[in-house]
Amino acid sequence: MPPNDRRDDEHGAAGEEALIEQYWASLAAGFPGAHGLKDDCATIEPLPGSDLVVTTDALIEGVHFFPDADAADIGWKALAVNVSDLVAKGAAPLAYVMQVALPAVDHAWLTSFTAGLAAAQKAFGCLLAGGDTDRTPGPLTVSITTFGSVPKGRMVQRATARRGDLVYVSGTIGDAALGLALRRDPDLRSRWNLDDAACRLLDGKLSRPHPPVALAAALLAHASAAMDISDGLMKDFMRLCRASGVGGRLEATRVPLSEPAASVVAASPDQMQLLMSGGEDYETLACIPPANAARFEQEAEQGGTRVTCIGAIEPSAAGIAMIGVEGVPMHFTTTGWDHFSVG
Amino acid sequence: MPPNDRRDDEHGAAGEEALIEQYWASLAAGFPGAHGLKDDCATIEPLPGSDLVVTTDALIEGVHFFPDADAADIGWKALAVNVSDLVAKGAAPLAYVMQVALPAVDHAWLTSFTAGLAAAQKAFGCLLAGGDTDRTPGPLTVSITTFGSVPKGRMVQRATARRGDLVYVSGTIGDAALGLALRRDPDLRSRWNLDDAACRLLDGKLSRPHPPVALAAALLAHASAAMDISDGLMKDFMRLCRASGVGGRLEATRVPLSEPAASVVAASPDQMQLLMSGGEDYETLACIPPANAARFEQEAEQGGTRVTCIGAIEPSAAGIAMIGVEGVPMHFTTTGWDHFSVG
Repeated sequence: MPPNDRRDDEHGAAGEEALIEQYWASLAAGFPGAHGLKDDCATIEPLPGSDLVVTTDALIEGVHFFPDADAADIGWKALAVNVSDLVAKGAAPLAYVMQVALPAVDHAWLTSFTAGLAAAQKAFGCLLAGGDTDRTPGPLTVSITTFGSVPKGRMVQRATARRGDLVYVSGTIGDAALGLALRRDPDLRSRWNLDDAACRLLDGKLSRPHPPVALAAALLAHASAAMDISDGLMKDFMRLCRASGVGGRLEATRVPLSEPAASVVAASPDQMQLLMSGGEDYETLACIPPANAARFEQEAEQGGTRVTCIGAIEPSAAGIAMIGVEGVPMHFTTTGWDHFSVG
Repeated sequence: MPPNDRRDDEHGAAGEEALIEQYWASLAAGFPGAHGLKDDCATIEPLPGSDLVVTTDALIEGVHFFPDADAADIGWKALAVNVSDLVAKGAAPLAYVMQVALPAVDHAWLTSFTAGLAAAQKAFGCLLAGGDTDRTPGPLTVSITTFGSVPKGRMVQRATARRGDLVYVSGTIGDAALGLALRRDPDLRSRWNLDDAACRLLDGKLSRPHPPVALAAALLAHASAAMDISDGLMKDFMRLCRASGVGGRLEATRVPLSEPAASVVAASPDQMQLLMSGGEDYETLACIPPANAARFEQEAEQGGTRVTCIGAIEPSAAGIAMIGVEGVPMHFTTTGWDHFSVG
């Protein structure tokens, strides 16, 4: 194709077919519709009575990860950020296709990247169905499109929250934002009084997010609306409320924090803003009618996912607010991260 | 997210949501599963008794198109190269998701790109279902994943060619390769005696490929194997033969050429090599059992697609060859374009 007219011998050791054989084929093993990655297309046969749920997200070096990021972490995270969207819609992950743009062929990097993807596949229950590998003069880019399955017409929507719903989050909030702050400024560690284990936990939440795959069934059964939290709790809550045409109130004191995050807030209460808007949580934000709340909590717990009620949906006229200590609404100078903005 | 911590106001005019509203939403109008691009996922409800066929391909500035390429052409081609894969599998295009990485927000560029995509959608019969827009420090990249529909279990495979099959191609071969050669070296125009109309035709085949969407039904009904021709006729034919464990023979004199391409070959017979290996044809290569050939030709013609028999599948022991003038096998110094190779 046009400018870079790179050709190689059909047997060339670094051609796309060699990369498929050496790295990608193992990720597709066991998925019949991948056709061994030897055809031009994959086939996906949805379960009878199911809709296919589709989401796409890219990780770009220098935008979504640091140039020195561990290759295995990049592989894990590229799939995890996609699975996070599926889970919040009540979908069970099935398969994904991947477009990788590589600045160079680095076999050690590719081996590690493939291992990270393989671990994520196993954790999230999906396999590679197809892909496309290109050389790029620019930054490494991994663009994944993931497929999940929900019973026909049952995808949990963002725009269907109802007045009176209770608002839940899975897991803990703000760990990745702290992990990122620590990467940027290692001096924060002593200012925040964090030990090795605490730093590892926060960094791990940034580099290897674990979307709550076990929660999908409980969401499907009980949620009136949901979305994943990727751009900051406050921003994503505002999006959900606006899409649904409702107002809502979250209470900062009820937001579940990990032990390290709680100790950061104890040492430096201002950081609560960062936790609520830092993004990259890859947890689920769910609206549950009060009548379903007990069963939702119980089924989430049975699946091993911690869920916490942090607020409620209100009439549109009530606005959207985060209530801080002593009932005072928090003011956000920034509500969260945007994947795209003019610099 | 990590390094470039760009935030913008929720109402920021250039945030991802503004881009969706201003450009992408119009492309999704009419596809219910797109949810107006306001949810995190799309839903795709395959037709009863159908498999979903999926393919993914990226266009990267400086690799797949020139930096000064027309934005509308980039939009058209990003979808066309994907649709080409679907068509060759016998699939009817349904929808696509798109990941765009932009180095900057250029509204004139975005307007033109969107118009090119809209024209391609109309030509190929599919709509935007979802997407992801990011800022990139690198080259503009458009990564599309496209969905099509085939009756359950009926995808036309690459690896199922059978000895005795006749080998057909759709359209004409080599025009895009000549268009690219002319872009690189405008002096070729006079050496090849091409007039304005001829140059426009060749350049148009490069910048606005038209995969033969109307051919899908005839392939489904009659082909034992097929794939699209994107990396050069010779290379893709070799791939099909190897995947199927067969040999095969193509005859260069039977390969259909456009009028401008035929006159180039008349002026410069050596260029036949380029036509057979230049790539970017986005036509279909199909293997048809002789008993189906007459009906295949008839149904293709009824759909408005020209198909030409250019060879046959042979036993594996016969090898894979392109027969040139006077029955002499052609020797290829390069068989075709690889999307990826070590520089």
